[in-house]
Amino acid sequence: MIQTFSLNTPAEGFIDITAAARKAALEFYEQTGQEDALCTVYCPHTTAAITINENADPDVQTDLLYALKKTYPDRPEFRHCEGNSAAHLKASCIGSSVQVPVQRDTLLLGIWQGIYFCEFDGPRRRTCIIHIR
Amino acid sequence: MIQTFSLNTPAEGFIDITAAARKAALEFYEQTGQEDALCTVYCPHTTAAITINENADPDVQTDLLYALKKTYPDRPEFRHCEGNSAAHLKASCIGSSVQVPVQRDTLLLGIWQGIYFCEFDGPRRRTCIIHIR
Amino acid sequence: MIQTFSLNTPAEGFIDITAAARKAALEFYEQTGQEDALCTVYCPHTTAAITINENADPDVQTDLLYALKKTYPDRPEFRHCEGNSAAHLKASCIGSSVQVPVQRDTLLLGIWQGIYFCEFDGPRRRTCIIHIR
Repeated sequence: MIQTFSLNTPAEGFIDITAAARKAALEFYEQTGQEDALCTVYCPHTTAAITINENADPDVQTDLLYALKKTYPDRPEFRHCEGNSAAHLKASCIGSSVQVPVQRDTLLLGIWQGIYFCEFDGPRRRTCIIHIR
Repeated sequence: MIQTFSLNTPAEGFIDITAAARKAALEFYEQTGQEDALCTVYCPHTTAAITINENADPDVQTDLLYALKKTYPDRPEFRHCEGNSAAHLKASCIGSSVQVPVQRDTLLLGIWQGIYFCEFDGPRRRTCIIHIR
Repeated sequence: MIQTFSLNTPAEGFIDITAAARKAALEFYEQTGQEDALCTVYCPHTTAAITINENADPDVQTDLLYALKKTYPDRPEFRHCEGNSAAHLKASCIGSSVQVPVQRDTLLLGIWQGIYFCEFDGPRRRTCIIHIR
């Protein structure tokens, strides 16, 4: 099953997309009755990424964004004319997708885990793809 | 097939979990006879991760842990009250899972590759999930 | 379906392997007629990795390589006798594989996305594995 949805992002930030993945897992199970499956959440952009991290204290996301800026700064030596090479770098270091095992209708996320779309070069209209099989 | 197991971790460190994944791949093949499959090793925690790296010289793991501490240090600006934001950052940069293709009963790991549970905020009792399909 | 191919790499660099993945997706669909699938591109080495990033301006790859060297430098404290711990670190931070959803015969890559084999410790003869299911 493939589901695609759009989202509006801020300049930089983590958008919680866990609910969309949970809903897709439920629908997949209702359609197939399959005992286990693998859910992939995929980002088809090169200056954004997908990660799994804490869903409770929003300060964690603030700290992650802050530390990513410090770890992967804009550098005067960058040549790419669009000026967003740091965002491309963050995208490759965080990664273009996550995979979560599915048992019956349930994503096997840990109790503190949420799935986040990571915008490093917004604000923009973005697309996200959920694949379950 | 989904298998879950527990492990005790040190304060920080890489724990070799390759044998558990190899055993799961063998059992999956014995049960299904499937010619090829995908093995996902998943970490349901937000201050730990899964990686694939060298299985021969343990100095590689020492160097990786050292460099991760230098690359993603604790920062005075961090707000998260638990004080483990650096561990959350490492978790997102290393990633919550790895995927390895399976041919018959064999994980297609390279000759020098092992699968590691990466603890960034222990010691703790942790859980690891293996999914093959 | 599992396909394996070899490639020669430079000392350090990104090699575009998108065409091989697209071809595998096409062949898988011709063989199976399966409506959707998941494509994994896997690196069986510990000083190389796979990433997805911009396929248009080659300056992006130059900037990524430059920034990775700055972010994950060789360190005098490293103990691994082969002297390539920075390459091992980059391999774990970028990751050993990528996953891309496949719809019919088409990889759902974004318009600007390409798949790259990342060499951090060449030049070498390397292997790459494509798995689709």
